[in-house]
Amino acid sequence: MIASEDSPYRILERKRDGCVLEESEIQAVVDGATDGSWDDSQISAFLMAATIRGLNAEETRSLTVAMYESGERWDLSAAVPGVVDKHSTGGVGDKVSMILAPLLAACGVPVAKLTGRGLGHTGGTADKLESIPGLRLNIDRKRAVELLGDVGMVVTVASAEIAPADKRLYALRDVTATVESLPLVVSSILSKKLALGASNLIFDVKTGNGAFFADEMEASSLATLLVRTAKALGRNASALVTDMSQPLGNWSGSSCEVIEVLDCLGGGGDAALMEVTLSLCEQLLAQAGQAVERQTLLEKISSGEARERFER
Amino acid sequence: MIASEDSPYRILERKRDGCVLEESEIQAVVDGATDGSWDDSQISAFLMAATIRGLNAEETRSLTVAMYESGERWDLSAAVPGVVDKHSTGGVGDKVSMILAPLLAACGVPVAKLTGRGLGHTGGTADKLESIPGLRLNIDRKRAVELLGDVGMVVTVASAEIAPADKRLYALRDVTATVESLPLVVSSILSKKLALGASNLIFDVKTGNGAFFADEMEASSLATLLVRTAKALGRNASALVTDMSQPLGNWSGSSCEVIEVLDCLGGGGDAALMEVTLSLCEQLLAQAGQAVERQTLLEKISSGEARERFER
Repeated sequence: MIASEDSPYRILERKRDGCVLEESEIQAVVDGATDGSWDDSQISAFLMAATIRGLNAEETRSLTVAMYESGERWDLSAAVPGVVDKHSTGGVGDKVSMILAPLLAACGVPVAKLTGRGLGHTGGTADKLESIPGLRLNIDRKRAVELLGDVGMVVTVASAEIAPADKRLYALRDVTATVESLPLVVSSILSKKLALGASNLIFDVKTGNGAFFADEMEASSLATLLVRTAKALGRNASALVTDMSQPLGNWSGSSCEVIEVLDCLGGGGDAALMEVTLSLCEQLLAQAGQAVERQTLLEKISSGEARERFER
Repeated sequence: MIASEDSPYRILERKRDGCVLEESEIQAVVDGATDGSWDDSQISAFLMAATIRGLNAEETRSLTVAMYESGERWDLSAAVPGVVDKHSTGGVGDKVSMILAPLLAACGVPVAKLTGRGLGHTGGTADKLESIPGLRLNIDRKRAVELLGDVGMVVTVASAEIAPADKRLYALRDVTATVESLPLVVSSILSKKLALGASNLIFDVKTGNGAFFADEMEASSLATLLVRTAKALGRNASALVTDMSQPLGNWSGSSCEVIEVLDCLGGGGDAALMEVTLSLCEQLLAQAGQAVERQTLLEKISSGEARERFER
């Protein structure tokens, strides 16, 4: 094994031994994941070494940027100024995005939501929405900009062209016990958000025994790391840590959850679920420079404006 | 990701977190490597976690046994009592095995040498011997027993049936920067030795800047771990730590080395090279209950008996 400066072996050796990797070394890992010159065994060894040894703030930032730049960049805020994006770490019965997005749209704030498939034991928003027959989530940039103009909101799944390096790492993390590494979680989430290019990001980090990060300390660390890294990369960002000790709302399961969302947008809805949704909405509106009273939000729901956005 | 008790994920998670694995968990890793139910990414993640977190004596023993039992067992000592096996960790110009084996055979001690391909920057004995046109090293157990009876020595490369789990791990270690882990080195070497089934093992652990383990402390640790693990598994074993700051002998390169071996067996030969060879020979003969004077060994060489064994 000849280990030249930027060879996979040399980089793996350095992370294995607990060294801080240079930006060029992180770039080499991501390039290798994107062009296939690093094989699964090498990427997996990197993921395990990074999970055990950790990645510092600078390495996390480098990894995020390199993964974001590995694919298509939509730069939505260039076409739709002030567009916001919300991310939840997911939990049983979490349907907040499906209520929040139309509510924000009804308030005049454009929402672009890049949604994911299932992670761990919970389904992603994409899985839930696709239980609606005929709904298309594979939307390209052009259509996304159109929908933002027409409806004020768009929900799309990450195409193969968005952060392809993340897709490769994500799939391997799922089988190598490296899902829980905070820097890897942060770089995975943010690389896709940056690719979409919203100006304002809000993170709903779930905690409690129904959440991916059950421990509240860990959930707080994740929230901090997400916001800090996003800000270091020039984005407006904030996070709420919300309770997921109980399933959120009354229903779990893809199509039941869609029905419950329609109920919430019709003015019904579980109190805890609505509280999380309205808090996130207020925080995001404030961040977007549009402080709105809770009463106004409730009116958007009772008037049917929010539900009308969802249906469109 | 559902993580049942002995699932790859659960085992990886435990080693990642620095836990000591149970024998059944180590067995599950090796079974997975052998039957293919663990993919390269999972095995690589295991190797990296084991390299960083370490494996204790018990885990190392379990890994060795599980890898040995993953394939064919020759149990040569049942057919040829007292058969010995020598292993060198390798170094530039290391041709000791090719001199030692015929010398031991000439002393009436049967030698079965399972040889390897190149590791790191040095060639294995197999590579060197195969520079002799027409030489066959792919020998089965039946032929090995015959040769031990006729010539008193046999050199063979590990067939695909010998410790197949080790073959899989070895190939992945070579690309994942996990070659240097002492417990992984020990289990790899010993699993093959156990499969061959010699009664007496001797290890020539090289140190100095021409060796795989340049650092003398590390070479000593390897020697200790090899002997301790082999003894815990019921084998007679000893080790010498020998200098490899200089290439051993005058020639490096496969066919040149064979020519030099013939020279040594003809009574010539570099002093340092002959010193290592004769020391190992004395140690192994003592271990086999046959204390022999150095003078006797030199006579075996000058009389041409040793060279005659090599030629046969």
